[in-house]
Amino acid sequence: MLRTLTIIPVHGLPEVRPGDDLAGLIIDACEESCRLEQHDVLVVSQKVVSKAEGRLVEVDPDDPQSHKPLVVEESARIIRRRGDLIISETKHGFVCASAGIDRSNVEPNIAALLPDDSDRSARRLRDAIAGRCAVRVGIIVADTFGRPWRRGLTDVAIGSAGLLPVLDLRGTDDAGGRELQVTEVCIVDELAGAAELVRGKATGVAVAVIRGVDPAWFGEGNVVDEIVRHPSEDLFR
Amino acid sequence: MLRTLTIIPVHGLPEVRPGDDLAGLIIDACEESCRLEQHDVLVVSQKVVSKAEGRLVEVDPDDPQSHKPLVVEESARIIRRRGDLIISETKHGFVCASAGIDRSNVEPNIAALLPDDSDRSARRLRDAIAGRCAVRVGIIVADTFGRPWRRGLTDVAIGSAGLLPVLDLRGTDDAGGRELQVTEVCIVDELAGAAELVRGKATGVAVAVIRGVDPAWFGEGNVVDEIVRHPSEDLFR
Repeated sequence: MLRTLTIIPVHGLPEVRPGDDLAGLIIDACEESCRLEQHDVLVVSQKVVSKAEGRLVEVDPDDPQSHKPLVVEESARIIRRRGDLIISETKHGFVCASAGIDRSNVEPNIAALLPDDSDRSARRLRDAIAGRCAVRVGIIVADTFGRPWRRGLTDVAIGSAGLLPVLDLRGTDDAGGRELQVTEVCIVDELAGAAELVRGKATGVAVAVIRGVDPAWFGEGNVVDEIVRHPSEDLFR
Repeated sequence: MLRTLTIIPVHGLPEVRPGDDLAGLIIDACEESCRLEQHDVLVVSQKVVSKAEGRLVEVDPDDPQSHKPLVVEESARIIRRRGDLIISETKHGFVCASAGIDRSNVEPNIAALLPDDSDRSARRLRDAIAGRCAVRVGIIVADTFGRPWRRGLTDVAIGSAGLLPVLDLRGTDDAGGRELQVTEVCIVDELAGAAELVRGKATGVAVAVIRGVDPAWFGEGNVVDEIVRHPSEDLFR
């Protein structure tokens, strides 16, 4: 039986600084709004994870291109360049613009890098919340990426914990009893995008709670091993 | 102020056949579950739109590759091939596998093609619902596409009506008062993916209602003109 999902923006998270206890700040903010429940999924923006983990670098506030040397440093491989645009493969294997480095929602002299290991960041949040609130939740660390053939950006998962990143429907029958052709749904990316709809970019709402997720979607898995496509499978790199 | 979104699966849609009044069937099914409200967004699977519009072709039920000649016919350009996999640009400009043709949730001797013009399909549904229910809704026609660098599939919009496909945040300030770098969010794709989470593939729930969408996101626009990236802008074709 399919369920209704609710996507709740979490207000009241303070400005996050390096070394902050992010799990504690999120738990406190959720207390005010929706109080965490068993099988909630929390979608947390990459930006606050990077801030808490101190993944911040000083740049020239007067030069909008002053973070570009960092893009090359944070990349394993440059894939395409056009003007100021650099599409590269990051050390984690993500293919995205500017190696995921950006300068919005940080001080003018700061650029935020991606977390070293967003799956680990997600696991730590999951474990801290399980320990303090005694609820089993899923965590997604989300960032905003472009797509090669479609305009506009969408949020995707760059890290996850407690969730099956891909729902494998192979061997499942369609409504007519025939085996499905579309078989592997990337639920963590769909959840990340859904959360973006209530988080917004301009408002500084860094966390959303998704309630009503099927308990069968909880389990072990992570984004880098299960979602990032290996270059050997790739037709477009 | 950001709102809570609710994503509601619509049960009870009967098997759709060529020539059926799809808007009427959807309205009836919604009456049973959630009764349409002003500013609801309805996400409708490509499959039922294709069925209602008779975009069905006979194929050999015993040969799983018998629809392959149709893939070439429905493509403007083949982009990559590997084994049975064909990635092409469809006549509409979508870059996807098998020109969007698939054989799940149809009879074994049938393959479903994409609608001729899914934006038009969406406009017709929007207009019919406005006429009969006196509510202004947004419509998204959704299909399941792969991504070049990420495993698993997600639902995206192949047609829309009544919604701004891209939310343009250029000129908007971030929470710190600086201009945002990430500026154009493809909300129709995020809405399509969110709806997939409650629709599922195996269950035959072809429609979901998303309630709580910001009224400012309603407006004129369509997917083919605003989301499909023109080959001249493309770095990966």
